[in-house]
Amino acid sequence: MAVIDINADLGEGFGIWELGDDLALLDVITSANVACGFHAGDPLIMRRVCAAAVERGVTIGAQVSYRDLAGFGRREMDVAAPELTAEVLYQLAALDGIARAEGGRVAYVKPHGALYNRIARDPAQAGAVADAVRAYDASLPLLTLPGSAVHDVADGLTVVAECFADRAYTPSGGLVSRREPGAVIHDQETVVGRAVRMAVDGTVVAADGSEVTLRARSVCVHGDTPGAVALAQAVRTALTEAGVKLEPFA
Amino acid sequence: MAVIDINADLGEGFGIWELGDDLALLDVITSANVACGFHAGDPLIMRRVCAAAVERGVTIGAQVSYRDLAGFGRREMDVAAPELTAEVLYQLAALDGIARAEGGRVAYVKPHGALYNRIARDPAQAGAVADAVRAYDASLPLLTLPGSAVHDVADGLTVVAECFADRAYTPSGGLVSRREPGAVIHDQETVVGRAVRMAVDGTVVAADGSEVTLRARSVCVHGDTPGAVALAQAVRTALTEAGVKLEPFA
Amino acid sequence: MAVIDINADLGEGFGIWELGDDLALLDVITSANVACGFHAGDPLIMRRVCAAAVERGVTIGAQVSYRDLAGFGRREMDVAAPELTAEVLYQLAALDGIARAEGGRVAYVKPHGALYNRIARDPAQAGAVADAVRAYDASLPLLTLPGSAVHDVADGLTVVAECFADRAYTPSGGLVSRREPGAVIHDQETVVGRAVRMAVDGTVVAADGSEVTLRARSVCVHGDTPGAVALAQAVRTALTEAGVKLEPFA
Amino acid sequence: MAVIDINADLGEGFGIWELGDDLALLDVITSANVACGFHAGDPLIMRRVCAAAVERGVTIGAQVSYRDLAGFGRREMDVAAPELTAEVLYQLAALDGIARAEGGRVAYVKPHGALYNRIARDPAQAGAVADAVRAYDASLPLLTLPGSAVHDVADGLTVVAECFADRAYTPSGGLVSRREPGAVIHDQETVVGRAVRMAVDGTVVAADGSEVTLRARSVCVHGDTPGAVALAQAVRTALTEAGVKLEPFA
Repeated sequence: MAVIDINADLGEGFGIWELGDDLALLDVITSANVACGFHAGDPLIMRRVCAAAVERGVTIGAQVSYRDLAGFGRREMDVAAPELTAEVLYQLAALDGIARAEGGRVAYVKPHGALYNRIARDPAQAGAVADAVRAYDASLPLLTLPGSAVHDVADGLTVVAECFADRAYTPSGGLVSRREPGAVIHDQETVVGRAVRMAVDGTVVAADGSEVTLRARSVCVHGDTPGAVALAQAVRTALTEAGVKLEPFA
Repeated sequence: MAVIDINADLGEGFGIWELGDDLALLDVITSANVACGFHAGDPLIMRRVCAAAVERGVTIGAQVSYRDLAGFGRREMDVAAPELTAEVLYQLAALDGIARAEGGRVAYVKPHGALYNRIARDPAQAGAVADAVRAYDASLPLLTLPGSAVHDVADGLTVVAECFADRAYTPSGGLVSRREPGAVIHDQETVVGRAVRMAVDGTVVAADGSEVTLRARSVCVHGDTPGAVALAQAVRTALTEAGVKLEPFA
Repeated sequence: MAVIDINADLGEGFGIWELGDDLALLDVITSANVACGFHAGDPLIMRRVCAAAVERGVTIGAQVSYRDLAGFGRREMDVAAPELTAEVLYQLAALDGIARAEGGRVAYVKPHGALYNRIARDPAQAGAVADAVRAYDASLPLLTLPGSAVHDVADGLTVVAECFADRAYTPSGGLVSRREPGAVIHDQETVVGRAVRMAVDGTVVAADGSEVTLRARSVCVHGDTPGAVALAQAVRTALTEAGVKLEPFA
Repeated sequence: MAVIDINADLGEGFGIWELGDDLALLDVITSANVACGFHAGDPLIMRRVCAAAVERGVTIGAQVSYRDLAGFGRREMDVAAPELTAEVLYQLAALDGIARAEGGRVAYVKPHGALYNRIARDPAQAGAVADAVRAYDASLPLLTLPGSAVHDVADGLTVVAECFADRAYTPSGGLVSRREPGAVIHDQETVVGRAVRMAVDGTVVAADGSEVTLRARSVCVHGDTPGAVALAQAVRTALTEAGVKLEPFA
């Protein structure tokens, strides 16, 4: 029987500002990537999201980021490794303490935005993130892209690959850049069909029509628009109807 | 035999900016109030201070603050209780995780600056801080002023009082406001003598000449100027020579 | 013929986060209080709002604030006067430079949130704000509450009073605190009626039923919810139909 | 008669934290690159530095930066052009307003740290900075490296080249990277000799011994250590004794 996890970014408001529908998403996903205050998320939001996740039995992950509220963590930064390690450790510990106060705990780490992309190809920053996880709790898995540079620097850590049902793939199994046309797939039926195939067969049709093998234990969905939540709900329903078991990876 | 702890604020730089001589102070004190990133202290500084404290056997405390880098946490803020609780919890957890990664742990909590003063008289903010400590680890003592409003809201928590050898006291055992002349005592011999008397007899001579009883388990020293470090060293030497045992309270 | 200005807060997003419908409000108001980056508003948002205001002929004011993104400037802070003056001057100059780059200019200053309330009763902070305006351009009016402490410290400045159609008033012409029941009036017909009466007669019925005289040159409306924009539009329509001339005060 | 300007970075503290000896440097330099709050500098510091510069007749420049207090603006960031333009415009306008309140004005723009280096080779970010200057006041010169990519995008702007007496040069007139050994020259006599030769002959001996022509209208000195200030003073004295006229370029 096929098993997959559904993850999404949560807690990405800040102060008065809101982003996405966290409560709606918590009914769809099995793992919540909770923002830790560096790209989004303030302590009160973190506490509320953790409480809601614990209540619904959703697994909590630390969505660590560059320190960049103004850019939502989407701008690459040349942060030196010792500093990046300390910053990731700080965020991870802060969220874990809050999660524990709500009866849960951080069960995995997923870097956010530009940091997620950077560590897929930069061994120095990838190593810095891995060092932070190792220093805090080496049993925590890192959720990343398949083929990320993290694999090469993650000695002793568990690295878990995720896939994206609404993104186009290259023939080698990478994501088509968002700057390319067709990089993001908006048609609900197509997205749902790809999600099921990823979970059941472990494959996806790449942009050139070739079939690519993906070994992903989690599928990432989004919730920052009303349409995105509906799409995430459709993905969950289709996976369940296809007999796929929804289960956290961590 | 008299026993006392010596505490000081550490890790109060930020990024490129430095403040105080942390390494010199670590040879004087038994408890380090480590800044947690809200008024000062970045993750890398926190990590280095924790490593140095662990190496020297100095106890680590979380110096939690209002979110106010520009004002160094010295400006009172009307923060609502749920938000303040979450902010203190965040800081406490972040520092504890970093301390643990360095082989130590946070053993107590000391609010910083304007928050320290505010919770001495504001039950709502005092209760918010107490809630954060309770939510994280109710066994952690809170280091505060004698007579602080914290005592009234700290059910189930341990509250530890501290004294200041270089500050003038009112006849009722409070601190003379810094706005008053003579509030801070600069003469080394006087300060050292007061420290010894506080530790040995549990008394201090107030501004009006009357003798006041102080039950303080810790004496606070400062290190943000070269003169301050020398004064702290003189206090330590005098306490030791007077047969006072220097021992962390936590 | 009665003349009034309609003002509202604009540009109150930050980075990825949005707040309110700036473009819809620009069709309602005659004066835009543009956030300057301290409680909300980043430089790109400021630029876009200024460009849109200039295009529509809406007057631009500087909505200066405490430095408090996390609290949206709604928490009182004990900022020392020289620092507050410099901070207001910084915000005012930054927005004015951006407005000029878009073909406009800052024509008035309206403090935001907790600073607005604080300077209504704290002469030190009121004086600090007045000093900033005086230092930058003493011809810029300050938009405030009637009876604000600003009046006492604003030598050489023009102080303009505003009124709120959706707020209950005390018999002495002050606003009923938001903590009191009935402080905010939600019924559209009532709000619209009060706005017209404020503009035409210069009066409002206070919470105790007595009639109060208000000398306000501007009425403040809100736009942070869809309902608020509709209410603001209704106020504008009713004022126009009542023969009131809508005209910026600055 | 040879003419040169001496510039240095000033106002680079933040809140409680200090950096460098601004007052000592103001007696050495003819142009002050004043931090604008994004990598360092708060409004009160900006005001004090501008007042001191005006008092001494030192020209004020805007030292604009990435938004990165934690990294002191030394980390490259992938900021999109419209955002970077708005951020530079904001900083420039804020400092100019403060300078004018003190009786001066901003007379030029010098990007700081990682932004300075980035725009030497990235036409998109260089164009974004140029757009900001053009939008604010196209008569303001940009102070940069010779050969910077800024030259290619600075239509209508004046670009002024600076040199560094304490940095090693490549045979093509670029700076040897700080990561290379010998990149920074510490010997006072050598530095002073190079400064005089740069000003009088317009040449410098490169790392490989070859002589390179430099057309720099300003020489940059540093003041963030006591030794640096003494070195800057020695450079000024030597230039004067060599008959070089010290004069702001703007």
